[in-house]
Amino acid sequence: MTASQDEAALWWATAVSHIEPGSIELRDRPVQELIGTTGLVDVIWLLLRGDLPTPRQSALLEAALVAGVDHGPQAPSIAAARMAATCGVGLNNAVATGVNLLGDSHGGAGQQCVEMLDDIRARHDAGAHWPDAAREVTADWQSRSRYLPGFGHRFHPVDPRRDPLLDLVHEAVADGVVKGEFLQAALAVEELLRLRRAGARPVPMNIDGATAVIYAELGFPAPLARGLFVLSRSVGVLAHAWEETGQGRRNKGPIPRSIMPARLPASEDI
Amino acid sequence: MTASQDEAALWWATAVSHIEPGSIELRDRPVQELIGTTGLVDVIWLLLRGDLPTPRQSALLEAALVAGVDHGPQAPSIAAARMAATCGVGLNNAVATGVNLLGDSHGGAGQQCVEMLDDIRARHDAGAHWPDAAREVTADWQSRSRYLPGFGHRFHPVDPRRDPLLDLVHEAVADGVVKGEFLQAALAVEELLRLRRAGARPVPMNIDGATAVIYAELGFPAPLARGLFVLSRSVGVLAHAWEETGQGRRNKGPIPRSIMPARLPASEDI
Amino acid sequence: MTASQDEAALWWATAVSHIEPGSIELRDRPVQELIGTTGLVDVIWLLLRGDLPTPRQSALLEAALVAGVDHGPQAPSIAAARMAATCGVGLNNAVATGVNLLGDSHGGAGQQCVEMLDDIRARHDAGAHWPDAAREVTADWQSRSRYLPGFGHRFHPVDPRRDPLLDLVHEAVADGVVKGEFLQAALAVEELLRLRRAGARPVPMNIDGATAVIYAELGFPAPLARGLFVLSRSVGVLAHAWEETGQGRRNKGPIPRSIMPARLPASEDI
Amino acid sequence: MTASQDEAALWWATAVSHIEPGSIELRDRPVQELIGTTGLVDVIWLLLRGDLPTPRQSALLEAALVAGVDHGPQAPSIAAARMAATCGVGLNNAVATGVNLLGDSHGGAGQQCVEMLDDIRARHDAGAHWPDAAREVTADWQSRSRYLPGFGHRFHPVDPRRDPLLDLVHEAVADGVVKGEFLQAALAVEELLRLRRAGARPVPMNIDGATAVIYAELGFPAPLARGLFVLSRSVGVLAHAWEETGQGRRNKGPIPRSIMPARLPASEDI
Repeated sequence: MTASQDEAALWWATAVSHIEPGSIELRDRPVQELIGTTGLVDVIWLLLRGDLPTPRQSALLEAALVAGVDHGPQAPSIAAARMAATCGVGLNNAVATGVNLLGDSHGGAGQQCVEMLDDIRARHDAGAHWPDAAREVTADWQSRSRYLPGFGHRFHPVDPRRDPLLDLVHEAVADGVVKGEFLQAALAVEELLRLRRAGARPVPMNIDGATAVIYAELGFPAPLARGLFVLSRSVGVLAHAWEETGQGRRNKGPIPRSIMPARLPASEDI
Repeated sequence: MTASQDEAALWWATAVSHIEPGSIELRDRPVQELIGTTGLVDVIWLLLRGDLPTPRQSALLEAALVAGVDHGPQAPSIAAARMAATCGVGLNNAVATGVNLLGDSHGGAGQQCVEMLDDIRARHDAGAHWPDAAREVTADWQSRSRYLPGFGHRFHPVDPRRDPLLDLVHEAVADGVVKGEFLQAALAVEELLRLRRAGARPVPMNIDGATAVIYAELGFPAPLARGLFVLSRSVGVLAHAWEETGQGRRNKGPIPRSIMPARLPASEDI
Repeated sequence: MTASQDEAALWWATAVSHIEPGSIELRDRPVQELIGTTGLVDVIWLLLRGDLPTPRQSALLEAALVAGVDHGPQAPSIAAARMAATCGVGLNNAVATGVNLLGDSHGGAGQQCVEMLDDIRARHDAGAHWPDAAREVTADWQSRSRYLPGFGHRFHPVDPRRDPLLDLVHEAVADGVVKGEFLQAALAVEELLRLRRAGARPVPMNIDGATAVIYAELGFPAPLARGLFVLSRSVGVLAHAWEETGQGRRNKGPIPRSIMPARLPASEDI
Repeated sequence: MTASQDEAALWWATAVSHIEPGSIELRDRPVQELIGTTGLVDVIWLLLRGDLPTPRQSALLEAALVAGVDHGPQAPSIAAARMAATCGVGLNNAVATGVNLLGDSHGGAGQQCVEMLDDIRARHDAGAHWPDAAREVTADWQSRSRYLPGFGHRFHPVDPRRDPLLDLVHEAVADGVVKGEFLQAALAVEELLRLRRAGARPVPMNIDGATAVIYAELGFPAPLARGLFVLSRSVGVLAHAWEETGQGRRNKGPIPRSIMPARLPASEDI
């Protein structure tokens, strides 16, 4: 091999997969040994981390992935993918359109929530009580943004995905599958918000918060909370884009023409 | 509800999910009943089709999804996602970039293969022998393109994913899980190519062909062969994009500058 | 240079631009000679074709590019970009989201229209009268689709962009700037549709048709009719995405929650 | 109109364009009055800002847009678009793929540079001398990042686009077209870097810096420095994607297989 080839090879070096004629290895495991023996969730873990999860770890990850698959066509990711599907592009382009929208405020809250919980956990490790650690860290976040990532939902008074996810984390803690520090941190935030808003509408953990707890407990770094949500939500994006193709619309706009006034008001009128 | 609201509601009508304050139903099932009880592959099936698969159907689908997760950074989808990850965009944008490239010739072969196998199956149903049906239909495809979707691989003499996938289909046929007609159609094409190219490099079924057999046997319409491949390959796209972010490059080009000559030849010289 | 470097260089060979340390050449012209002397439309032509247009050619291209910049937020490309801009992604991601939707049925009609007009022109070259050539070719297109690309508009009885664009083409023909064959072909289709639908709502040329005439008269191949429309519509996509960021919404859905019923009807009810 | 329609209308309110049957107004100007009379660059300004530029303002904006159209296939945006064009997707999808990569570190430096220059200008307004203002603000930026947006280029010792762009700004200042404060701020940074790095490789203004000066002098807010670069670079992205489609490759990877070793090193070996 020449020096040039060496450089080209290093430029694209990867530990994820090795491909040779007749051979495909995923994290050093021949693909034919995975097909039919290893589940999709285990393979997600394998590709991201290089090893396989235990069955209990895998089950916890699977629950989080299942919880986030869809939240209906009011979500901009889903709506955009459905509109794309009517514009004469492939299903892959429609799914990409939806995934592209899972940005800092749409799908990125999980990532921010892991960072926040990690801050709280670190302060607790350094000796602070959970309520104090939660108070300090949330004060810091709230000084920078009016949103506390992972808590509250503009639509659901209580997010129906919170309880079943946290129940699974509690069980996993009880059985020694995970340590439970991120769960403690998240519950401390929830309690803080409850006390602070006594009598007002509660701000319980939402899907981003509950899955952030799981991802963090399982040892995923914060950016992968967003990455894993992308995999999860892709399922719903695909299902909606596919359903839309069966409805026969063409260049579907956001609102039916029949009720969209021809002349929109100027934006200054808002 | 006013007439306008009715129209707006019909415009976004969906059977995939129903969202109300405090309630999320996926295909009429409360999400909290799915979390922790139903696997990710089953939920993929549920969202796309409205019902749940049997365990054997689910296992077959899972094998196909696992088989396609990655094929290394030489695949343009993976390379583009890795480059995106160095440009200061979110992981969601990097994954969307990769998925966007799974077009007619990159990820669309499965869709075309299902269509081709369905043609063969239909001719067999109408009385033709498998070899004749395969000969007629492939002749038709080859008159329009030099590629027969799902067969042959420019890199692998034999695609290592073929055998384990087809073994699972054979078992499923033997146990009455699927009928096996698409398997027969695909094997007829493979045999035809073997006879036609006696002595030359064989053109066995590739990943697109073997997974097309599975998707078709399970009753998925052709476009979902592409859609399901999108979900599968998203796993590898994410893993590679994430690995790349850890390598610290910035605005990574396709070839290291050190071996890319400053002055590229003009394209006419190719 | 090693053989490997030669191969890498050929792999990325291009006649569009040559970059060396301290030097940027676009189609063999130093960029510093273009800046301040050459207009944007001329540079678009230069990069796509390798030479510079005459002032009259440039003016015709510019008119077509100006005509297509925007068609309001009911267009799915614009709506999707506006929604993207509220999801916490960059303006580049929002523009990419809109551009991604300019597919076969949204922005691709111009490309198809050029193909259709080229068929008509070829039949005329082979001796057919314009009305006969138009009748034969449109019959062929209408046997495959209910849409005739470039004619009719679901919203405008007469597209206000048709007349000013065609007036410019007529002038350019009169002055010998372009030959006028594609104009003739398009007018023959329009006349045919007028006669066929006597008394019914007319189906005049729309923006895709009128710009297709211009692009084809200027010698652009059919796929660039889509490509040039992409450049044109990017302007409106950017302006809308930018305006949306100033309105302060977060994760904007297609319809305000206040009038979207919580429970959408199932899609079977459509 | 019902209350629901009012709400739907406000949800999509816009000052950019108004569309009624038979009428298209861009920023309250009938499109037919713009076609053939108003240049593309003026229309870009019009859609983004609501008014038309003077000829001198327009010329300055045009120079900045021309300067950024392309930087060859080593740029990840261009390379990704070229790879996309070989994967069986539309030209619109290929362009979107390239544009999607113009993120914080690829196309976003102009936006950051405007912010930095604005900080310097504000300190100067508050009484600081240019060198002091530049020293304070750059120290602040460099405490957060090793890159100073808009200065230095990893490939060009001197960016050939710097001088012609700054010459135009100097002229515009002399003629009273713009005030020149952002130019002063940028030159102060350049001088600071020159003094600080005496004898070492200079770090002059690059394309992002020189165009940031222009955009800021013309009154565009910082995020539009990125937005305008997106429009500019789209031209090169399209030209490269289109050239690639003529070269006949299929699923083009980043490096030719002939020189990519089958087995890439693991990423840990980097």
